Amino acid sequence: MRSTLTDWFPILRWGQVYDRSQFAADLTASAVVTLLLIPQSLAYAMLAGMPAVTGLYASIVPMVIYALMCSSTVLGPGPAALRSIMSLAAVGTVATAGSADFIVASAVLAVMVGLALLIMGGLRMGFMASFLSQPVLSGFITASGLLITMSQLKHVLGTPVASNDLPTFVRSLGQHLGQIHGLTLAVGLGSLLLLWLARRSLKPLLRQLGVPAVAADLAGKASPLLVILLSIALTNWLNWSQQGLAVVGDIPQGLPSLVIEPLLGIPLATVQALMVPALLIAVMTFIEQISIAQGMAAKRRERIDVNAEMRAMGGANLAAGLTGAFAVGASFSRTSVVAESGGRTPAAGLITAVLLALTALFLTPWLHDLPMAVLAATILISLGSLIDFRSFPLNWRYARADFAAQALTFAVTLLVDLVTGLMLGVIASLALHIWRSSRPHIAVVGNVPGTEHYRNVLRHEVVTHPHILGLRVDESLFFANARYLEDRIGAELANRPEVRHVVLQCTAVNEIDASALESLRSIHQRLQEAGVQLHLSEVKGPVMDRLRRSDFLDRLSGQVFLTHHQAVQALANAGR
Amino acid sequence: MRSTLTDWFPILRWGQVYDRSQFAADLTASAVVTLLLIPQSLAYAMLAGMPAVTGLYASIVPMVIYALMCSSTVLGPGPAALRSIMSLAAVGTVATAGSADFIVASAVLAVMVGLALLIMGGLRMGFMASFLSQPVLSGFITASGLLITMSQLKHVLGTPVASNDLPTFVRSLGQHLGQIHGLTLAVGLGSLLLLWLARRSLKPLLRQLGVPAVAADLAGKASPLLVILLSIALTNWLNWSQQGLAVVGDIPQGLPSLVIEPLLGIPLATVQALMVPALLIAVMTFIEQISIAQGMAAKRRERIDVNAEMRAMGGANLAAGLTGAFAVGASFSRTSVVAESGGRTPAAGLITAVLLALTALFLTPWLHDLPMAVLAATILISLGSLIDFRSFPLNWRYARADFAAQALTFAVTLLVDLVTGLMLGVIASLALHIWRSSRPHIAVVGNVPGTEHYRNVLRHEVVTHPHILGLRVDESLFFANARYLEDRIGAELANRPEVRHVVLQCTAVNEIDASALESLRSIHQRLQEAGVQLHLSEVKGPVMDRLRRSDFLDRLSGQVFLTHHQAVQALANAGR
Repeated sequence: MRSTLTDWFPILRWGQVYDRSQFAADLTASAVVTLLLIPQSLAYAMLAGMPAVTGLYASIVPMVIYALMCSSTVLGPGPAALRSIMSLAAVGTVATAGSADFIVASAVLAVMVGLALLIMGGLRMGFMASFLSQPVLSGFITASGLLITMSQLKHVLGTPVASNDLPTFVRSLGQHLGQIHGLTLAVGLGSLLLLWLARRSLKPLLRQLGVPAVAADLAGKASPLLVILLSIALTNWLNWSQQGLAVVGDIPQGLPSLVIEPLLGIPLATVQALMVPALLIAVMTFIEQISIAQGMAAKRRERIDVNAEMRAMGGANLAAGLTGAFAVGASFSRTSVVAESGGRTPAAGLITAVLLALTALFLTPWLHDLPMAVLAATILISLGSLIDFRSFPLNWRYARADFAAQALTFAVTLLVDLVTGLMLGVIASLALHIWRSSRPHIAVVGNVPGTEHYRNVLRHEVVTHPHILGLRVDESLFFANARYLEDRIGAELANRPEVRHVVLQCTAVNEIDASALESLRSIHQRLQEAGVQLHLSEVKGPVMDRLRRSDFLDRLSGQVFLTHHQAVQALANAGR
Repeated sequence: MRSTLTDWFPILRWGQVYDRSQFAADLTASAVVTLLLIPQSLAYAMLAGMPAVTGLYASIVPMVIYALMCSSTVLGPGPAALRSIMSLAAVGTVATAGSADFIVASAVLAVMVGLALLIMGGLRMGFMASFLSQPVLSGFITASGLLITMSQLKHVLGTPVASNDLPTFVRSLGQHLGQIHGLTLAVGLGSLLLLWLARRSLKPLLRQLGVPAVAADLAGKASPLLVILLSIALTNWLNWSQQGLAVVGDIPQGLPSLVIEPLLGIPLATVQALMVPALLIAVMTFIEQISIAQGMAAKRRERIDVNAEMRAMGGANLAAGLTGAFAVGASFSRTSVVAESGGRTPAAGLITAVLLALTALFLTPWLHDLPMAVLAATILISLGSLIDFRSFPLNWRYARADFAAQALTFAVTLLVDLVTGLMLGVIASLALHIWRSSRPHIAVVGNVPGTEHYRNVLRHEVVTHPHILGLRVDESLFFANARYLEDRIGAELANRPEVRHVVLQCTAVNEIDASALESLRSIHQRLQEAGVQLHLSEVKGPVMDRLRRSDFLDRLSGQVFLTHHQAVQALANAGR
């Protein structure tokens, strides 16, 4: 019981040895990451179609829950681009964007993502991530990056361009091109330019001006916040919002609170419609989180507990949903900021939560005049890490099947929708894998003269015996290739009427599942009917143990030989 | 072009050498199989919810098309139990049983099954059958057998018991128990008893009475037809249909004709709803057909062309649908009857089609008084081959994962519906396979002293070098296990701070897909950041060729060694 509790809440372990120097390091890191989180929170809330304040809520309680449950030292949950657009796309199918129903459904989705992660973590189902192959992931993420770009253009152009999918976007853009709002476009492009310059040149410039490294670094990281403050000041001063520039507007002051009742009122049909998206978001969240955590842990030669991470992120999403926010996950940019700023323990997350709570309590009135176009610019500037076309030609060269899965996922995500794209990608990579596995390499083997070795007759000068057919199966036998083995043995025998013994050399067979056992049974029966004996050689220990639990060995017409050479010698002598 | 034509229509090949003795053999076999087919056709039409005459149609034109296109010698398409209940279940979701819409939709389903088989056969997609593992198939077939039993009870009890799924059936049976029709029950049980006795004792009895073997055998096979004729005579004589015994009634006389127009009027939504069922029926049909054909071919040491078989069955289903019948497939009982009766070529199918056409032209008026209860009895008596509970405990002992997939498929098919059951079964076996593949066996290896061999440190007395970590991966690397490799290497290094070189021994790696390459890249980068070099040893030729097409080898911090021993020697010496 005790160990289970510390498994689920590792804070009980590291909290006992937490000291003042760790606190100082964590405090610095927290302050830096808060500067980054404030603009990100507002921007990704907008991307998810949610009120700006829910972006702050998405970090406060989830951060606390995560810090209590996580095992890694530097991750922290919060809003992120990919999850926000997935949430928007999923909830958009069950509620109108901006409606009260939409906000409730987004929170319900976060609760469902949380429960999915908690269940997967509790049942140690980290292998779920194995279903998403790298090409499918990269095709999906690149297409999502393009969809995010399209969705943000309306804020920069100041005209409502629809962006559910590429064809809709192109049509809608054509219709709205005449209605671009000049001031909005100027503010949007201006802040994009400033953000780009700050990212590229601010830090080196400040260093040249003699600013200490730490301060220059901090200024670089805070540049989105600086651009936001500048835009608020200008908007306020020049009265831009009167001239049609869309601003964030009133943000309620205060701390997040539990919103259970509206969530319970959600129709069952909505919950059902959100099931598949919730599962996909949970798996994507887990993959992102684990690859970030593994990268960090490897640098420090630490271990992470994959299932604890999954549960912690589940708890964080549950907390996000129950406080009225949307689905959250780890972010690579925030994680590396925490690590570079010296954050050492999950306590950094607790301190960040306090700083964000203070922001929600006292600073939200200052954000009234923040232009939407500037928030859109902060999203657009960070999309470079998502959109990546370089892997397409690499996969084309390396493996056509992988390229096909990638291209399919990319195209369907962009042309139809995110959930269909990701689902089809998963199905395609599974189908391609089964297709490849369904024709394992099976070699006819013969004796290398003067030795006890047996090699492929097509590649080596070997000796075979006319009454004996030796076959080496270079793969585990399971349902996808069981029938191929039947077919292959049938084919080999049709060409060799004089064969009386078939010997399967099982060196590379790590497993024989029930389907393959059934195939072996039917191969055995057919061979028997044709007057041919079936033998096995070099069966591995675990495979043999399992075969003993069936009646296959009792009924076998032939024998099981320790080595292929023993089999051939015994059968060749018996044939004389 | 010429070769393609004979590929698609093998009759162009064997037709040229067809002679009189073959014809005599084929004629005998056809006569016997027709005796079997007449009751089967009527019964399985009833099971599929279709008019009795469509059962005959389902064999006439499809037999002809199949004979033109098939490569195996003894198969023949016709109605069969499993397909009929799948058709009933699928079409039942889009139309009311017995309505005109239902009949059209059943024909459309047959057309779709035909197109699916033609496409799969044309694209050589026989591997689609690999998705259905043996335990899933057996769980599905056993549950289907129980569902067929439930569906036929209403005809034997003479009261309309609903049977969509087990709970519905149990409820409905309770409600209708008071309304059992005595005469119907008596006729049903009587014919069941007769059929059972005939199957068990007729042939030996006739032989004892001195009847020649051939005639006794024929009488045994014709026993369902004899019971049917007896029941028709009794019903007619004793006027049972006036006393409430349900009979087949009027069957239109005449040959099947093309029914294109009603099929074109089908709503698109219906077609969409039938897509998944059509694909599943196509795959099931293919699997049944191939396992029967492989069994027959193996006995005769012949080869079958899997794709030609699939196309031929596709053509047969297309013909069935276009002549207003339902989905068809091969049947084990009919095939073995043809083989035992000496049928030698697909011409037996052509002759059977002629005999069935004569039946449809002249004999249908005689079937008016055939009791439904007797048809139900002919179905029930043959279900023994479908319902098979023995494999459940066998799978439980042999492999729990396979048992789980089987039990899930069985339960969902019985409790929900056939399509959901089969789909969930497929998903479960894929998930279990990915789960198993996601944790490949990876051994830390060391040198067997005095040799150049390297073995698992846990199983053998071997020597390792503190700066070198040798890992042998016992599986191909692909998306399902790529992340596990990252995790495992991270874990091994966390325990060995003094390691400077990681050498992956790739003896058993037959493939590295794009996901695994990406994992190798990130492993490589993380190792580099931690000051550790990554090396490969014993990479297979094809894997090496493919790696050369990427930039992985160019960037590799370490080297690729021909043998693991060379790697360890070179690195150990360099470390000095």
